[in-house]
Amino acid sequence: MDKNKIKNIGVLTSGGDSPGMNAAIRSVVRTSLYYDIQVTGIMRGFEGLIGEEFIPMNRKSVANIIQRGGTILKTARSDAFYTKEGRQKAYDNLKKNGIDALVVIGGEGTFTGANIFGKEFDIPVIGMPGTIDNDLIGTDFTIGYDTAINTVIDAVDKIRDTAESHDRLFIVEVMGKDSGLIALRSGIGVGAEAILIPESRTDVDQLFKRLASGRKDKASKIIIVAEGDEIGGFEITELIKEKFPNYDTRLSILGHIQRGGRPSCMDRVLASRLGVAAVEALLNGQKNMMVGLVNHNIHYTPFYNAVKHLSEADPRLLKIVNILSL
Amino acid sequence: MDKNKIKNIGVLTSGGDSPGMNAAIRSVVRTSLYYDIQVTGIMRGFEGLIGEEFIPMNRKSVANIIQRGGTILKTARSDAFYTKEGRQKAYDNLKKNGIDALVVIGGEGTFTGANIFGKEFDIPVIGMPGTIDNDLIGTDFTIGYDTAINTVIDAVDKIRDTAESHDRLFIVEVMGKDSGLIALRSGIGVGAEAILIPESRTDVDQLFKRLASGRKDKASKIIIVAEGDEIGGFEITELIKEKFPNYDTRLSILGHIQRGGRPSCMDRVLASRLGVAAVEALLNGQKNMMVGLVNHNIHYTPFYNAVKHLSEADPRLLKIVNILSL
Amino acid sequence: MDKNKIKNIGVLTSGGDSPGMNAAIRSVVRTSLYYDIQVTGIMRGFEGLIGEEFIPMNRKSVANIIQRGGTILKTARSDAFYTKEGRQKAYDNLKKNGIDALVVIGGEGTFTGANIFGKEFDIPVIGMPGTIDNDLIGTDFTIGYDTAINTVIDAVDKIRDTAESHDRLFIVEVMGKDSGLIALRSGIGVGAEAILIPESRTDVDQLFKRLASGRKDKASKIIIVAEGDEIGGFEITELIKEKFPNYDTRLSILGHIQRGGRPSCMDRVLASRLGVAAVEALLNGQKNMMVGLVNHNIHYTPFYNAVKHLSEADPRLLKIVNILSL
Amino acid sequence: MDKNKIKNIGVLTSGGDSPGMNAAIRSVVRTSLYYDIQVTGIMRGFEGLIGEEFIPMNRKSVANIIQRGGTILKTARSDAFYTKEGRQKAYDNLKKNGIDALVVIGGEGTFTGANIFGKEFDIPVIGMPGTIDNDLIGTDFTIGYDTAINTVIDAVDKIRDTAESHDRLFIVEVMGKDSGLIALRSGIGVGAEAILIPESRTDVDQLFKRLASGRKDKASKIIIVAEGDEIGGFEITELIKEKFPNYDTRLSILGHIQRGGRPSCMDRVLASRLGVAAVEALLNGQKNMMVGLVNHNIHYTPFYNAVKHLSEADPRLLKIVNILSL
Repeated sequence: MDKNKIKNIGVLTSGGDSPGMNAAIRSVVRTSLYYDIQVTGIMRGFEGLIGEEFIPMNRKSVANIIQRGGTILKTARSDAFYTKEGRQKAYDNLKKNGIDALVVIGGEGTFTGANIFGKEFDIPVIGMPGTIDNDLIGTDFTIGYDTAINTVIDAVDKIRDTAESHDRLFIVEVMGKDSGLIALRSGIGVGAEAILIPESRTDVDQLFKRLASGRKDKASKIIIVAEGDEIGGFEITELIKEKFPNYDTRLSILGHIQRGGRPSCMDRVLASRLGVAAVEALLNGQKNMMVGLVNHNIHYTPFYNAVKHLSEADPRLLKIVNILSL
Repeated sequence: MDKNKIKNIGVLTSGGDSPGMNAAIRSVVRTSLYYDIQVTGIMRGFEGLIGEEFIPMNRKSVANIIQRGGTILKTARSDAFYTKEGRQKAYDNLKKNGIDALVVIGGEGTFTGANIFGKEFDIPVIGMPGTIDNDLIGTDFTIGYDTAINTVIDAVDKIRDTAESHDRLFIVEVMGKDSGLIALRSGIGVGAEAILIPESRTDVDQLFKRLASGRKDKASKIIIVAEGDEIGGFEITELIKEKFPNYDTRLSILGHIQRGGRPSCMDRVLASRLGVAAVEALLNGQKNMMVGLVNHNIHYTPFYNAVKHLSEADPRLLKIVNILSL
Repeated sequence: MDKNKIKNIGVLTSGGDSPGMNAAIRSVVRTSLYYDIQVTGIMRGFEGLIGEEFIPMNRKSVANIIQRGGTILKTARSDAFYTKEGRQKAYDNLKKNGIDALVVIGGEGTFTGANIFGKEFDIPVIGMPGTIDNDLIGTDFTIGYDTAINTVIDAVDKIRDTAESHDRLFIVEVMGKDSGLIALRSGIGVGAEAILIPESRTDVDQLFKRLASGRKDKASKIIIVAEGDEIGGFEITELIKEKFPNYDTRLSILGHIQRGGRPSCMDRVLASRLGVAAVEALLNGQKNMMVGLVNHNIHYTPFYNAVKHLSEADPRLLKIVNILSL
Repeated sequence: MDKNKIKNIGVLTSGGDSPGMNAAIRSVVRTSLYYDIQVTGIMRGFEGLIGEEFIPMNRKSVANIIQRGGTILKTARSDAFYTKEGRQKAYDNLKKNGIDALVVIGGEGTFTGANIFGKEFDIPVIGMPGTIDNDLIGTDFTIGYDTAINTVIDAVDKIRDTAESHDRLFIVEVMGKDSGLIALRSGIGVGAEAILIPESRTDVDQLFKRLASGRKDKASKIIIVAEGDEIGGFEITELIKEKFPNYDTRLSILGHIQRGGRPSCMDRVLASRLGVAAVEALLNGQKNMMVGLVNHNIHYTPFYNAVKHLSEADPRLLKIVNILSL
């Protein structure tokens, strides 16, 4: 490793926040210090890059944050970064402050921006997947996904208590505008009757048949719907109420609780590993790559590939749903 | 105590379920057994009373349930119980099965029904306050309230993580159609900027002034709104978005997670104490009373009084909100 | 209120930490600011008072801490404060920094020290009860107690899972060197078979009889022991193993997890109310008092009274244990 | 798949219980029913096999258990199964009850017994890895491990609150008699200063050096020790106290809470997938195999291989500890 070339690494979080981002920041900071490199925290994502909201980071800056949800560097969406002027300003600020490499923690939008920036300017950028959606190519899991699905099952376990008590049918809408991955895994985790996701067509007739037949030996039911599903939580609730007027059917939209909370152990370990890998990638001269974990090994994927969308859900999980929910 | 008169106590849960109902059932069953009285579980509230859904209960029936949300006896709303015929059927079933006293666990609707029933027929009925709303006269806390407010603060602590990261203003709507008690105490618990409840007029202008002035030193904010508030979560969100278009304002409706979950220690202890008191009240010849805890002592309130509505929020708590949220 | 006399309130936490201390600090700071009084944070309790570890506090200092366990002001035991010289140094530091009143958050030791200090020097001191033990006279609950008993029942609910699976008898030792209040309420909350506390003699023969008779219809059992019980967790485990060699008997000592964690809603509300009351008490010219909540109302108790020890457990709770555990 | 050969599958849990065993049982039962095969629950592991404690299982038997810790089939250690007579009795019971295949859920001891049994008698046996220790060859994770490490970090996050408040050094002993895998991953998850595991020699001098040097910029510290470490929690605490008498050093042994609790989402999904795979393996004529998940794919490992011990900790994780704890 030629550690001499890079002297100061900037780190930022961008896009929707996810639990484990703080553990990721901590890892980037401590790994940099381990390799005798300075670290600069950049507030509010690309917005703070343009606005020069920079803070020097040391061990103390990241003490006692590994367990906290959210991101101490805050995050924001930046329209300015989509302009050439904005990115030029960002680059000038980096040069001015002696920052010669960047770690960006975020999702699709973050990497799309980072990719343009990294190609326009002579600054190596490495990405870490920080999003609850788990919808990136090049990593088995994104930082925050495991916590989010645990938050969902905690909530649905509570809803199940009241569903059981009243013999109710609950439709629970979970996050995932373009991806059903939160719905799929949490749906298996709560033993859902059905899971509706954008990756597959929802056969309403089959769902109705299932609901009708299963009614006898299992009174309360949970249906998990991803917010990006073609029908959606609200609509499917209305359809079920119309078809089964004698069922006690309710809709619950879990909302923003899914983005917060203390990160799970797996998210903290993932964030810690990827932070080390991100800094070492920069030291090894890599750039425009997202660092991920594939089959428990560190894996690098070019930004433009990482953001390509998964169009299919994991058939191994879909099969399980089919067998176990019958 | 003349234990000889009562030989078999029926117990049921009715209305909306609340965490701690199982601890309450357990206490009624074990206390009855302690006094050598049989206990019969009645399924689905008054509906099961009319439908003769009776189960004999013993120590085993209530083993390992003290920690569970929901109610093993299930609950339902019963239209039939509002008819004279329904109540007559219910009474006949009790006589037929040798049940000579009743403990009903629920809220306002439950006690209103129990009051009519207890006056029409020669059967002593004692009520236990099981509702998350804490809106009954004659007890400082209802069984389930403490758990519900802890569920709310858990959820809002998660929302705060993402609010902080994005400098967002979150409006969080909590349960309480007629009562702001969940909103009030959980609002203090999360350090809310403002708390909107049905018991007091919402001064929108003052709220706007507060939001405008506080913006500088505290970027993220939480506003708690009871669902029964005259304006309501949705409307107030729209008003704020219109007035402060540059704020990042979001609405989150917590919904049914507030009814479920493992009961808190206080709810379990409360349910345990009130269960003992309910059975002992029957043994002492009382009837048509709700048993509650006032200033840590057992207190009996006639049903017709218990269901009278609190029209004012506790001024001692309102004062705190005013001082601490400034 | 004559607000003019007091210009700067010092606040410190002392003794063992308890969840809700941060909510208490926040309330003291925000209430002071509400009344246009400056606030100074004193680090590490009386030790920092002597060492002049002072920090000016503002709204930002207490932002986003209401939900955190521990204390941002840290805490320590101070031998120096037990000397006249130490206390003189402390007083000189207060004068030097213009601090003319003190709020101390802690337990028995804290108030004993505060009482001496408040009588020796011309400085009004008000105490807030911050301890998980709930062993102070003059308040129904101390800040941290409710969280601690919830932490205990969370842990025991987990232990019960494995106890049930193996039909094991678990002895669980909880905190409480001089007081059985954590044991008593959490023991009721988990449905313990027996609860051993320092306030009452442990009748081992009766316990053995109970364990022998109950074995048939309830295989797994939980016994809660306060660490200050005359026999203690280790000893009672040995005695049971000897008497019932065929039982699968295990000891679990919960330890320091009981001091930490996000405070419960009730602890946050209690801390918030008492913080307001503490500052207002100073403004009203009170001193050498602990502020507490008795029957939901603010109550002031002289320090020397607050620290007198409760020698008896609440008979209303003991009765419940006796009935429900049979 | 020739489903005709197998008509009735027996399922049991054995050895130490782990969270997710109920989700595993549920999956085995529902998958069997999906393939029109009967399922028989065998109570208390091999002990119930010998004692003929059999229960027919249907959809209702496994309703509402996916979220519960422990095992509804209970578990026990069986000395009798280590005798030829015991195993003969077990086989006779299976034949007598028409059970023609077996799914055993457990760890090392369970599979060792199953291996002998499966070779002695003409009955196909498939194993599912249910243990919190994660110490089996042939699966990346065992059912219960993810929950256990989350329980550990929850507990240590609480301990950290009090450690921070007092500037204390905490030694936390976690489960793992032969394996440091719980210690390793949870240690990374809490940002431990050092992690002591049986797989590697503990260099006490280096640990002392680290503790001495790091004292200045990070006052509170956490050291995680696996119970099987050559030095162990108690001993290392004594050594540190002796070397650093001015540190406030405490030991906390987490104990049996690590075995219980609601399973995490990942453990539920893992248990669900492996249950399907176990039943399908039997249908496909496999036997004497443990089913596991390797790189997210189903993987079969002969029992005798699965129980071979991992002698080394994952170097990828050890490296992270080294970098991040400095």
